[in-house]
Amino acid sequence: MNNYQPLLQLFLSHLENYTSNLKTKLPTELYEPENYILNLGGKRLRPLLALIAIDLFDKDPKLALNSALSVELFHNFSLLHDDILDAAPLRRNQPTVHTKWNTNIAILSGDVMMVKAFQVLENYNNDEFKQLNVLFTKTAIEVCEGQQLDMNFETANLVTVTNYIEMITKKTAVLLGCSLQMGAISASTDLETQSNIYEFGKHIGIAFQLLDDMLDAFATDKDKFGKQIGGDIIANKKTFLLLKAFELANDTQKQTLQNLALEKDNIKKVHHTLELFNALNVKNICGQEADIHTQMAINCLNKINANTQKKNNLKQFAFELLNRKI
Amino acid sequence: MNNYQPLLQLFLSHLENYTSNLKTKLPTELYEPENYILNLGGKRLRPLLALIAIDLFDKDPKLALNSALSVELFHNFSLLHDDILDAAPLRRNQPTVHTKWNTNIAILSGDVMMVKAFQVLENYNNDEFKQLNVLFTKTAIEVCEGQQLDMNFETANLVTVTNYIEMITKKTAVLLGCSLQMGAISASTDLETQSNIYEFGKHIGIAFQLLDDMLDAFATDKDKFGKQIGGDIIANKKTFLLLKAFELANDTQKQTLQNLALEKDNIKKVHHTLELFNALNVKNICGQEADIHTQMAINCLNKINANTQKKNNLKQFAFELLNRKI
Repeated sequence: MNNYQPLLQLFLSHLENYTSNLKTKLPTELYEPENYILNLGGKRLRPLLALIAIDLFDKDPKLALNSALSVELFHNFSLLHDDILDAAPLRRNQPTVHTKWNTNIAILSGDVMMVKAFQVLENYNNDEFKQLNVLFTKTAIEVCEGQQLDMNFETANLVTVTNYIEMITKKTAVLLGCSLQMGAISASTDLETQSNIYEFGKHIGIAFQLLDDMLDAFATDKDKFGKQIGGDIIANKKTFLLLKAFELANDTQKQTLQNLALEKDNIKKVHHTLELFNALNVKNICGQEADIHTQMAINCLNKINANTQKKNNLKQFAFELLNRKI
Repeated sequence: MNNYQPLLQLFLSHLENYTSNLKTKLPTELYEPENYILNLGGKRLRPLLALIAIDLFDKDPKLALNSALSVELFHNFSLLHDDILDAAPLRRNQPTVHTKWNTNIAILSGDVMMVKAFQVLENYNNDEFKQLNVLFTKTAIEVCEGQQLDMNFETANLVTVTNYIEMITKKTAVLLGCSLQMGAISASTDLETQSNIYEFGKHIGIAFQLLDDMLDAFATDKDKFGKQIGGDIIANKKTFLLLKAFELANDTQKQTLQNLALEKDNIKKVHHTLELFNALNVKNICGQEADIHTQMAINCLNKINANTQKKNNLKQFAFELLNRKI
């Protein structure tokens, strides 16, 4: 991460410049929420990836600043609307926009933010603008589809591991790939290079989400992880672990899993579910699946013709992301 | 309108082709609502304007079909989200999307529809694509701002006639101008021509909305108009008429207007408000304001270098729109 501090700072200045202009824009009900959510912080992973990608090809990172801003605006738009869908009261320990203002303002200010995610690309020349837009619309649609699939899974009876991988790919992974590819487009790279860096980001994103599922169930250091252990289990969330467990379980174990879904005692619920997960070896299987995607990502990165040191830095950064907590 | 039947049919075939592809798209929760709202009917005014504009310059209207589809998708996206904001149970006498499905699905399927409004422009060459996008994002943001201003007016104490004109310009008029200009861009016209046709559409849109306010208060033939006479008065809607009445009223008349806002007997409320409107001559003032915008529109149209017969047809069409009911 330290390698990328200058890139992060570059983006943060650009974002600061953008948000300071929001303060005087009218009607305030539309632009204050945008300013608010953009200032809630976060790792700025997606815009950073856009800048890392252009830097990988030894081009001036400034050329990708508006691509970076675009993905950050889109990401925050999706958080804003997802918080309505999830009826989430808090985001980064602050009230969500629909809580602080109201749902109508959250819908409409989100809509504007999405349009602006397109608008900030207008400084690119016509060819790059078109390439960026084609990628961006495809990705934006997939992110919405991923969110809908995630909502569907809550009530669906039959969800397979394959369905789950599709959902996390669309909901999370494609935007990481898109961020990197937008940086590569801003660097005027060829289509094959763009495809490789996109696939690198996508597979890292899938691996990241699988490891996130594992962390939720198996992290031992509560403070390090910062969330309640077993939150997904308590919420009956259809994670890779649970879906794989159902896939491998015998009839008795299936019945136990079904009974545990109704268990009111959360400590007991988490404990017995983890026992079953261990018996069925799903932690290792999930880890192996994550490893496969990590390896696919690395293979794609290796194919890219770019500065070797910078490729190693990016590999290192990806491993840090993946190994952050276990 | 009869002049434009072939253009309308051309668009309806294109739309039919688009919506038939939605039927098999997954997840169905995202694409069924899109198909549903696009098939609720309507005059298809905006896409028709895009086709009329390209035809005005003797270019093949087929070249503007995706521009036409784009504005129709955006318009329906905005209806879908506005129906949530307004908690409207019905749209064209059918259940609104958030009523037929639910609010979450309405938010997310609207989001996808907006992205697709951008995506359907991708068949244009890079130069036209950029021009179309720059216009489209600007307009989309204004439409959202107009909707927010309209919501703000419901509870605002001080709204001026100038504020009102800004609101209807953004909420309604700019998308008509945009539709025409997108047709003109698809016809590869110069910027001055594009600007004139945009302004023509914008001013017709403002005039249309002002006449709509008058109709709501003064239409005598209920069936012809199809809505309850005085609906705006009953709802205390801050129309041009009411705002102008407040502007011109003496202290006693102001007090009467304020009292009427609280009047529970709707027949009495409409009757006395109309008496005051007549005393203050606001119907005529509103008509004059509409005439000014109509004249501005015609001046812009006259400046355009295009087929005279087709210009006359468009003028005729605009007058039919404006004089539809009074």
